[in-house]
Amino acid sequence: MLLDSVTSPADVARMSVGELDSLAEELRRVIIESVGRNGGHLASNLGSVELTLALHHEFDIPRDALVFDVGHQAYAHKLLTGRRDGFSALRHADGCSGFPSPGESPADTGVSGHAGVAVSLARGIASGRKKNGDEGRVIAVIGDGSLTNGITFEGLTSGRDSAKKLIVVLNDNKMSISKNVGGVSRCLNRVISGNFYNRLRSMLREFSRPRKRLYSLLSRIDDAVKSLILPPGLLFQELGFRYFGPVDGHDLAGLLVLFQRIKRLDGPILVHVLTTKGRGCDFAEKKPARYHGVSGFDPVTGSVPPSGGSFSGTFGECLLRQAEKDERIEAVSAAMIDGTGLRRFAKDYPTRCHDVGIAEAHAVIFSCGLAIAGRKPVCALYSTFAQRAFDCIYHDAVLAKLPVVFALDRAGIVEDGPTHHGIYDLAFLTALPEIVIMAPRNYKALELMLDLALKRSGPSVLRYPRGGEGPRAAAAGCAPLETGKAEVIRAGNGPVIWALGAEAETALAAAEILKREAGLECCVIDPRFLKPFDEATARQYAERDVIVIEDHAVAGGLGALLFRLIPDDGTHLRLDFGWPDEIIGHGRISELRTRYRLTPELIAEDISKRLAARGSAAGN
Amino acid sequence: MLLDSVTSPADVARMSVGELDSLAEELRRVIIESVGRNGGHLASNLGSVELTLALHHEFDIPRDALVFDVGHQAYAHKLLTGRRDGFSALRHADGCSGFPSPGESPADTGVSGHAGVAVSLARGIASGRKKNGDEGRVIAVIGDGSLTNGITFEGLTSGRDSAKKLIVVLNDNKMSISKNVGGVSRCLNRVISGNFYNRLRSMLREFSRPRKRLYSLLSRIDDAVKSLILPPGLLFQELGFRYFGPVDGHDLAGLLVLFQRIKRLDGPILVHVLTTKGRGCDFAEKKPARYHGVSGFDPVTGSVPPSGGSFSGTFGECLLRQAEKDERIEAVSAAMIDGTGLRRFAKDYPTRCHDVGIAEAHAVIFSCGLAIAGRKPVCALYSTFAQRAFDCIYHDAVLAKLPVVFALDRAGIVEDGPTHHGIYDLAFLTALPEIVIMAPRNYKALELMLDLALKRSGPSVLRYPRGGEGPRAAAAGCAPLETGKAEVIRAGNGPVIWALGAEAETALAAAEILKREAGLECCVIDPRFLKPFDEATARQYAERDVIVIEDHAVAGGLGALLFRLIPDDGTHLRLDFGWPDEIIGHGRISELRTRYRLTPELIAEDISKRLAARGSAAGN
Repeated sequence: MLLDSVTSPADVARMSVGELDSLAEELRRVIIESVGRNGGHLASNLGSVELTLALHHEFDIPRDALVFDVGHQAYAHKLLTGRRDGFSALRHADGCSGFPSPGESPADTGVSGHAGVAVSLARGIASGRKKNGDEGRVIAVIGDGSLTNGITFEGLTSGRDSAKKLIVVLNDNKMSISKNVGGVSRCLNRVISGNFYNRLRSMLREFSRPRKRLYSLLSRIDDAVKSLILPPGLLFQELGFRYFGPVDGHDLAGLLVLFQRIKRLDGPILVHVLTTKGRGCDFAEKKPARYHGVSGFDPVTGSVPPSGGSFSGTFGECLLRQAEKDERIEAVSAAMIDGTGLRRFAKDYPTRCHDVGIAEAHAVIFSCGLAIAGRKPVCALYSTFAQRAFDCIYHDAVLAKLPVVFALDRAGIVEDGPTHHGIYDLAFLTALPEIVIMAPRNYKALELMLDLALKRSGPSVLRYPRGGEGPRAAAAGCAPLETGKAEVIRAGNGPVIWALGAEAETALAAAEILKREAGLECCVIDPRFLKPFDEATARQYAERDVIVIEDHAVAGGLGALLFRLIPDDGTHLRLDFGWPDEIIGHGRISELRTRYRLTPELIAEDISKRLAARGSAAGN
Repeated sequence: MLLDSVTSPADVARMSVGELDSLAEELRRVIIESVGRNGGHLASNLGSVELTLALHHEFDIPRDALVFDVGHQAYAHKLLTGRRDGFSALRHADGCSGFPSPGESPADTGVSGHAGVAVSLARGIASGRKKNGDEGRVIAVIGDGSLTNGITFEGLTSGRDSAKKLIVVLNDNKMSISKNVGGVSRCLNRVISGNFYNRLRSMLREFSRPRKRLYSLLSRIDDAVKSLILPPGLLFQELGFRYFGPVDGHDLAGLLVLFQRIKRLDGPILVHVLTTKGRGCDFAEKKPARYHGVSGFDPVTGSVPPSGGSFSGTFGECLLRQAEKDERIEAVSAAMIDGTGLRRFAKDYPTRCHDVGIAEAHAVIFSCGLAIAGRKPVCALYSTFAQRAFDCIYHDAVLAKLPVVFALDRAGIVEDGPTHHGIYDLAFLTALPEIVIMAPRNYKALELMLDLALKRSGPSVLRYPRGGEGPRAAAAGCAPLETGKAEVIRAGNGPVIWALGAEAETALAAAEILKREAGLECCVIDPRFLKPFDEATARQYAERDVIVIEDHAVAGGLGALLFRLIPDDGTHLRLDFGWPDEIIGHGRISELRTRYRLTPELIAEDISKRLAARGSAAGN
């Protein structure tokens, strides 16, 4: 394999176009094979192979800094920069991470898990390097989806001292760019002036105004006309960039010529590259959305193992049932319609479902606007992306006391790694007034909580993990909700285990082990509400050993709420099994839980040990 | 006064242009008088008087919803919508709040303290109203500064179903709009096509390429040429808006004619209005930045009472001294250069000071880029606005372990009200790994902490309030810092008071009262570091009455850290004097402290009462 001979970017720089084409095919094969086995992002990475090769061929990386916006287009880059071995164990704890990571290689310039940050980061690097007298280029590779994100615009419109060395490569795979911008971009050969268009539109409008049907028709084709006669890239030119493109992002020879030319010019430059998601892989090219992020698939047929039920799916079904009964219910998400279980909702209620693109702040504020207009918005975001809208949750929803429901999916640890872990949401949200925060332990609880949230006159949060309910948690059902009331889901006169949401499964399993192996009858409590928190029940069980299990950072989660109320009295256990105060790396969930001793078995073992240690201490 | 006859917007709608002009003058007088006495935002509010009158004259508010982006242009609106009485006590607890507030009047559509949210909110309202069959318009009034904010772009580029009724009024007072956009906007009469410009540029470049000096000259005038020949508002047209303007925002007759025309058209429409900050008030017109937000002034001469030292000023001075010694130090802020004490830094080191506009996320990520390039960035933001960049602090600074210093000014309660209170920062930040968080109690501590932060290899946070050190806290000096080590600043064998940062002053004053009135010798401890937190010292004093005083929400602040560590044994006091779990309204700091019993006198009184209650309980 040619890939075997690549140990650094310099090896790529020496290759001919023919060799690069062969290398592209090899990279594709390696990516398909590894993602099929390990899961990861497929379609976007297949689309960026030639672009990555061309960048490595023409630029001197990392002397020329390469900043990826959202790393799910960086696999080829990883394979070219010394991570081929780790790539076969992609997303495993001892393998390569799924996103650019400066700790993994100096070729990874920034952390890139959340979209929209690359241009700002590149601006900072360019500005800093300028003072160092460093002559290298700074290249930000952004996706079309990044253009829906406001931070990208902040980066594009800001800063002159960083301009000269800045190249922004827009990898446009037409997946989430707004139609307007995309329309403008594709009319390369029809560069009629904006001024001509304006005069034409005015004339047509004046002429047609008395003729109602014609006027209406013309208004409707307005956008279409506009996209035909405005030059491409005008938007970027307006923002001060020199625009090149659009160019075919799979034509290696063409890309090389373009980059050779561009690297001699002063910035800021925007290169618009058109690529195809899933390129070179039949099934991924046909269904790019399905093969965006996957848990694994058959590399030959593409068949994906059937997934069982999930909190996301249950949320989608419950919301659908609610929407049938109440036409005021609307769903809002930020490029997470599929991930949050809203696909069917979007199909059945297209006008009541709003996918705003990668624009979390806008999603939250738009939801607040819907609520002001008397609608019942449910805003579904991943916990990690909700961090980008914390201020809006406070400023726009809480302060105005609006009935917006925030459904935070992927709360807890995830296999995408540190950029995507959803383990800090409660730290901020539980500090806010006026808000009710719930965590369902099973599907039944999710159904009841969504119902309660939709009946409230103020803001509510539901948080739940990726994946599904466990068998024990499912069997425990859910007693009718009473705001701020915990539920005892396993009676017992032994240690009390408080379990956050779906961690009820871990707690019940640990309780079984402790019964079997130590004869202990643990009591398991599900707080259900993080806010208002059930202080009375907390105090009721304070005279026992109290243990918390939570899929959240120990700093600022359930334990922080509970142990403030019932601190360590020196005689009873106070243990908090959650994610410790360090950067939690990437890996399989099972690997991470084992490493941090958060499986039922290891938790039971640690509880037993602590109880035994106390026993022997008391015996002395 | 004409204003006396205005009890609702309908009264404005009936007025002639002449009457409106008189009313504008009256409004100005009332605004100058009240802001002079109470403090508030002067220059921006004087600039929007005619615009507000014209909107109220032509639209039916609140049937046509009016959404202000940042409320500091909404005083005239408040005076026209039933809040004239409250306006004389502007920003007092029993007076009118300084920002739009739906709780105050149905004419205030959204909460508007943070810039950038209005278009998104208007989109949501328009989308929701459409389903209700509501025919009203939704008008978002944004400032030019809002255009530097990414959320505004998310709002402008998103959503088709909200388009028809949407009108965005750009109140351009040329204060913070980028020169590029501003340049484009002002060339109304020079509408030569973008295509012509492109061809001209190419020709000139080809012609001049062999002639180096000419080429360089042409490159430099590139932007200037562009602003001369591109039509105005092209940027907004590219984003799908119909553009009107620019128009004189102080010409009432002109505004009325324009709005009469626009309200018959389908949206989305952008109206570009040019106004002058401070209009009609000599001193404010001359120095609009100085009279943007003020604590008070003489309404005739404009003279502002001299302000004493402050944490902001001290921060600026310390950073300047550091910058003299180390050329790598750079300052970054988001339209808060004056407020964070960086004016002198900006003057002395213009190339090392980056004001990125109202773009907090970009400010943080840009700082991270500077750090990647080996610079030493200090990013100064108000605590409340840092909420908008929490995700970037985690994703871009913490995960990459970059040495960025975050200086969070205005931490704690402020007179601008709930949108501006900085009382939630610690809740989120203390949950993050890898970060060191400090709170200086006086200027000396701030100096030492900044020095320590600049020497770190990872991210640091300093938080401090508006205003200055107190005499007692100043006298206490600051022992040399040791990371994670608290300092006892008043010895005593009585109750232990832990005081967060500048609350040392409150704690020391309360200790004096308790000594005088109850003979108690309180021990006062300044934790100095919130992270890492000094657990050893916390435990060392656990066998005493422990009291926390903090200018932060009780949920998620110093008390949350401390009381988790030390047991509530039922015999010792455990009191947390901070802001309770409710929306803290607006008012004078002294009013709010009195209402929530957070003055030294009231804290001492409450401690005494609790001690007495325990004494009598023990006596029973």
